[in-house]
Amino acid sequence: MLGGQDTDRAWAAPEQVWQDAHVAATLASRAETRTQARILRLLRDEGPLSRAELADRLQVSRTTVAAEVGRLTELELAEDAGPASSRGGRRSTIVDFRADLCFAGIDIGATSLNIAVTDGRLAILARATETIDVRQGPEVVLPKALRAIRDLLAGLNRPHRLVGAGVGVPGPVDFHRGVPVSPPIMPGWDGYPVRDALARELGCPVQLDNDVNVMALGEHHSGVARSAHDFLFVKIGTGIGCGIMVDGHIYRGVHGCAGDIGHMTVEETGPVCACGEKGCLEAMFGGAALARDATIAARAGRSPALLARLQENGVLTAADVGEAAGRGDPCAVRMVRDGGQRVGLTLAGLVSFINPGMIVIGGRVADLGHLLLSEIRGVVYRRSLPLATQNMPIVLSELGPDAGVVGAARMVSEAVYAAE
Amino acid sequence: MLGGQDTDRAWAAPEQVWQDAHVAATLASRAETRTQARILRLLRDEGPLSRAELADRLQVSRTTVAAEVGRLTELELAEDAGPASSRGGRRSTIVDFRADLCFAGIDIGATSLNIAVTDGRLAILARATETIDVRQGPEVVLPKALRAIRDLLAGLNRPHRLVGAGVGVPGPVDFHRGVPVSPPIMPGWDGYPVRDALARELGCPVQLDNDVNVMALGEHHSGVARSAHDFLFVKIGTGIGCGIMVDGHIYRGVHGCAGDIGHMTVEETGPVCACGEKGCLEAMFGGAALARDATIAARAGRSPALLARLQENGVLTAADVGEAAGRGDPCAVRMVRDGGQRVGLTLAGLVSFINPGMIVIGGRVADLGHLLLSEIRGVVYRRSLPLATQNMPIVLSELGPDAGVVGAARMVSEAVYAAE
Repeated sequence: MLGGQDTDRAWAAPEQVWQDAHVAATLASRAETRTQARILRLLRDEGPLSRAELADRLQVSRTTVAAEVGRLTELELAEDAGPASSRGGRRSTIVDFRADLCFAGIDIGATSLNIAVTDGRLAILARATETIDVRQGPEVVLPKALRAIRDLLAGLNRPHRLVGAGVGVPGPVDFHRGVPVSPPIMPGWDGYPVRDALARELGCPVQLDNDVNVMALGEHHSGVARSAHDFLFVKIGTGIGCGIMVDGHIYRGVHGCAGDIGHMTVEETGPVCACGEKGCLEAMFGGAALARDATIAARAGRSPALLARLQENGVLTAADVGEAAGRGDPCAVRMVRDGGQRVGLTLAGLVSFINPGMIVIGGRVADLGHLLLSEIRGVVYRRSLPLATQNMPIVLSELGPDAGVVGAARMVSEAVYAAE
Repeated sequence: MLGGQDTDRAWAAPEQVWQDAHVAATLASRAETRTQARILRLLRDEGPLSRAELADRLQVSRTTVAAEVGRLTELELAEDAGPASSRGGRRSTIVDFRADLCFAGIDIGATSLNIAVTDGRLAILARATETIDVRQGPEVVLPKALRAIRDLLAGLNRPHRLVGAGVGVPGPVDFHRGVPVSPPIMPGWDGYPVRDALARELGCPVQLDNDVNVMALGEHHSGVARSAHDFLFVKIGTGIGCGIMVDGHIYRGVHGCAGDIGHMTVEETGPVCACGEKGCLEAMFGGAALARDATIAARAGRSPALLARLQENGVLTAADVGEAAGRGDPCAVRMVRDGGQRVGLTLAGLVSFINPGMIVIGGRVADLGHLLLSEIRGVVYRRSLPLATQNMPIVLSELGPDAGVVGAARMVSEAVYAAE
């Protein structure tokens, strides 16, 4: 469990990790029946409900509701929360999550670690951010995450009991095994049992997925895509990736790597990408490409604003380009517009292919904001099939940096609020 | 019903069509319970099974199987087909479809009409092909389809009773309403109640979808994609389209137009497409583009073989290019290879995006065969994420011209072999 010294000691051998994780998952609280699972999801998505309302919604008898709520109370997941207002007849009782029930959301980025602790409805109770270098590997990064969760829980002014933790990482994941698979920017994480190592330490179920899928889930839970069941979440950060929501579920593809749009070829003669190919979308636009192009432009004397910033800080970032564009620097504006065109043309093709109900743009480069968004919109609306774009909004992420942690908590809540 | 004179008379007003179709669908035989539906799908996919095997497979009691088979017999869908070989103990009875049970598959193309009649397992009993011009509209084409079905059924050496018909058309379809929506090459079909008009005439349930989705279902039922649950079926005919199978079901997108890859931009400065945009995939390759490029090449004196064929026939087709390439004409070979590159680059992006388990190439231009296939393979395997392509075959359609009719029958069998 979350003992202070435990999180700092050497990690156990993988065999021990798998075995202990199995024990932790078996002991943890979770729904036992489909009706219990439906009750928990209703409480999560709609808030406290009376027993009478639960019976109506689920189309089961009040006796069944009473029995299932009784069992959820024994499992320490739900509890009675006072009398409901009268609907005539016998007064019903409000059912809610146990007040101590908590989830953790862990969003591991290349250089930052975002952690949040939520209640049973996945509302954030406390959050923390740390600077990390993901390349230091799981033995350095995961203990930091565990300490942050412990500190957040300890700082809550309420009793707390962790029933699940979700984790997003910036690389491909084998979702069913809970391990990163050949993640390019995370050497040392390949095949590491992240899910089960954390489950063992936290004593609760853990789910692992890549950061983009997790952010898509976050926007679906409480962001701009709340009412969308089929949408694309496009993350433009250092790299570019896409979460695909199909019928309310993340579509991961046959090998779990669906949505890897950063390496779609957009210009066969374009710059060489980190992956070794030429002209990938990510090599043309995204945080790393913007920083590279900004540095070239500054040194070539095409942008006094960027040159000044480069001389000041020694490096340029995508944020510098955004700031220069915001102040009207023509070269920076051109870079953002060209990038929007590239991304837009790629998305236009994907819209014709998958016909989504919405596109959400997130990630740090999305901070470039409406200049970028208007370019993307212009290309997508002009180059996609009219039938596909008729009612399709293209919008910026609503949750911003919280999308990952909320989505991670949402992901594991799906497992806890489900009967196996 | 299928009365001889009925199919030639004027079609009823749309209101009457909807009402009569509703009556026809209500009267028709179909599964009433989930267990009945599961029995029918097992018989379709695995062949005759004994009552004992059905009880084992469905994990229900023999009494339940007996009751449900009894009801399916009353519904005239299944029947006893003799004693099973002994497994020890009381001898069981084989259950099979009623021998008279038939489906119709209707594949409407731009210039051809393929019709087949199948048994309950969707094995083709008889097929017919007619030359049509789809632009003549539904009042000309649909009566031809009805007459063809009537003739095929009459020619069978067995009793027959049609329980469902599936239809594929070369254009976008509103699947839930059963009508074509703004189909570019089918003027006069826009909004026409194809599904319900046919249901009314045939007296059985009808399902309508676009031709590519239907062909994907066909390859999934009995073609090369039998064991694939997530794959792309790419049709290269006059135009180019894609059927998307996700978890064993056709994914149609939010407005039903998913898979329209023919109008993805592949070269911003490319030739003008029929849709009005420049450089669409379909404007660069596909039957119409190949015929256009072949004519230009012949007239420019770049290909003696194509020029000879043009002078002989007055026009050139994609098949002429294939034939010239097969005889080693360098210009024709170049055209096929360039086209394969274009298609391959587009598919490489889609593979990174959706991570399918397989790609099936079909449609008439697929007759260009292995020269085309090897180009597509070369690009996709080189330009997609290695994790996504590790076990992903790229293969030619196995059913060829039968894919559409088998898929259409499969589509409607899903409705008949399902409890509402």
